Amino acid sequence: MFGKVTMIGLGLIGSSLAHAAGRKKLATEIAGYDISADVRARAATLGFAKVYDTLEAAVKDADLVILCAPVGAYGDIAKTIAPHLKSDAILSDVGSVKGAVLRDVTPFLPQAVHFIPAHPIAGTEQSGPDAGFASLFDGRWCILTPPEGADAGAVEKLRLFWNGCGSQVDVMDAAHHDLVLAMTSHVPHLIAYNIVGTAHDLEAVTEGEVIKYSAGGFRDFTRIAASDPTMWRDVFLNNRQAVLEVLGRFNEDLSVLQRAVRDGNGEALFELFSRTRAIRRSILDIGQDSAAPNFGRDKSPEKNQ
Amino acid sequence: MFGKVTMIGLGLIGSSLAHAAGRKKLATEIAGYDISADVRARAATLGFAKVYDTLEAAVKDADLVILCAPVGAYGDIAKTIAPHLKSDAILSDVGSVKGAVLRDVTPFLPQAVHFIPAHPIAGTEQSGPDAGFASLFDGRWCILTPPEGADAGAVEKLRLFWNGCGSQVDVMDAAHHDLVLAMTSHVPHLIAYNIVGTAHDLEAVTEGEVIKYSAGGFRDFTRIAASDPTMWRDVFLNNRQAVLEVLGRFNEDLSVLQRAVRDGNGEALFELFSRTRAIRRSILDIGQDSAAPNFGRDKSPEKNQ
Repeated sequence: MFGKVTMIGLGLIGSSLAHAAGRKKLATEIAGYDISADVRARAATLGFAKVYDTLEAAVKDADLVILCAPVGAYGDIAKTIAPHLKSDAILSDVGSVKGAVLRDVTPFLPQAVHFIPAHPIAGTEQSGPDAGFASLFDGRWCILTPPEGADAGAVEKLRLFWNGCGSQVDVMDAAHHDLVLAMTSHVPHLIAYNIVGTAHDLEAVTEGEVIKYSAGGFRDFTRIAASDPTMWRDVFLNNRQAVLEVLGRFNEDLSVLQRAVRDGNGEALFELFSRTRAIRRSILDIGQDSAAPNFGRDKSPEKNQ
Repeated sequence: MFGKVTMIGLGLIGSSLAHAAGRKKLATEIAGYDISADVRARAATLGFAKVYDTLEAAVKDADLVILCAPVGAYGDIAKTIAPHLKSDAILSDVGSVKGAVLRDVTPFLPQAVHFIPAHPIAGTEQSGPDAGFASLFDGRWCILTPPEGADAGAVEKLRLFWNGCGSQVDVMDAAHHDLVLAMTSHVPHLIAYNIVGTAHDLEAVTEGEVIKYSAGGFRDFTRIAASDPTMWRDVFLNNRQAVLEVLGRFNEDLSVLQRAVRDGNGEALFELFSRTRAIRRSILDIGQDSAAPNFGRDKSPEKNQ
């Protein structure tokens, strides 16, 4: 499908993409670069990509270059690689925000390069080149946010690449993407980080108690609150407006719920608690989560044989 | 260990307890009752307990009676069964709040009955007699909150019962339990219900989009927001003070975090996002969660063979 494909950044997503592209032989060469010499060495040992020691060499002659670094680093990377990208190359990324990415990267690019931002809605709480695996994107959605006037052929080639990596592909504009993801990913992460922080700081309950009794619900939040801090810092620095908008709605709703608890309004509580079950069912119906109790993580010989 | 043991309420927890007690033969008779005739019939078919058609018959001659109904129903049940409990019987429960349970149940009990409230920190998002399984309590904690002056022998017998069901046992006073659980379970559930409600009501993002892109983090919240509405309504009606106290702290912390996002304070964000990882590690270290990425729910042939 492609000649040389280069991942810049070889953490969870970059290494998973290399595995996924290798699995279906989507490129004649799968190349990689990481700013960390340790990560480059580890990636070379793992062998999922041909690892280059400079950005320039990594992107030279590549048909497709995918930025897989924290989005705060994109501007510098774009500035460095722009003169070395070949004519008609596709430049893409996997960042969790899209408006800021267009803003930071576009100014550096020559006309002859097709910049088509992308965001695979997939991941785990783990980081680094050892965390990657080929099936990470299977059955998940990848959103492309081509700028106005983007080359239709380049968009189609990128769509086929993501299909080859196991994903379904949607196309929307960057601003809508950023709002949708603020709701389905960014604010949930912020809330999870926040409640884990609250538990950490609460004097009346020891950290040992929080940990021992976490199976009551708290542990579900700790998974996403264990995600990569640099990546998530950059998300919140670069999707401020949409995050604050959704967070405002969350806070309004929480005030109403807090009042219902204070007033002992059982009817209002019951109504909300019933309504939210339907969304879970829909997520299970389209295969975006496991239907097994507790996500299937508590292996029970009676239930999971 | 016991003669007749009776579960009142045959949903997820009651049926799981019956399975667990049966697995290790902790009683000569495992008896059950449910207010719903349908549930009684289904439980009888499943065969995990001898099902009685009245509360009176179910508790008659029982050495241990465990309330497994929503805590809002405890007062009525206690009033009905009190005259039929045998002398020296142990009465216990599995409710998620403990102060309100002591308040509601104690007034009806004769002196000769030992009331030792308990709370297993275990569950799934599923409900009903079909959802139960024997290993639900394995490796989880069960908290006993005996009132002042409780019979030490009765507390010890109940501890051994829960050990037999697979749990480790802690003892604390009811007020502290209610605060600890507000932090590790009740407020997390309230937050999860709230954010799922916000997503449902947000006009600018369709429900279809929320569902499709839920793998970005949102789906983690939908699991606990699918828990039994009646049970959770009763929790919030009966642990108001502790829930509002923890929620107050959560809100304070969230205001600080919101300000950090608004100010673009990357250092503050990075500091919090790094700190929360340690709690996750501790939970994994003591075996209270799965270390597999995404709770192990995304079965990947390469990673989970």
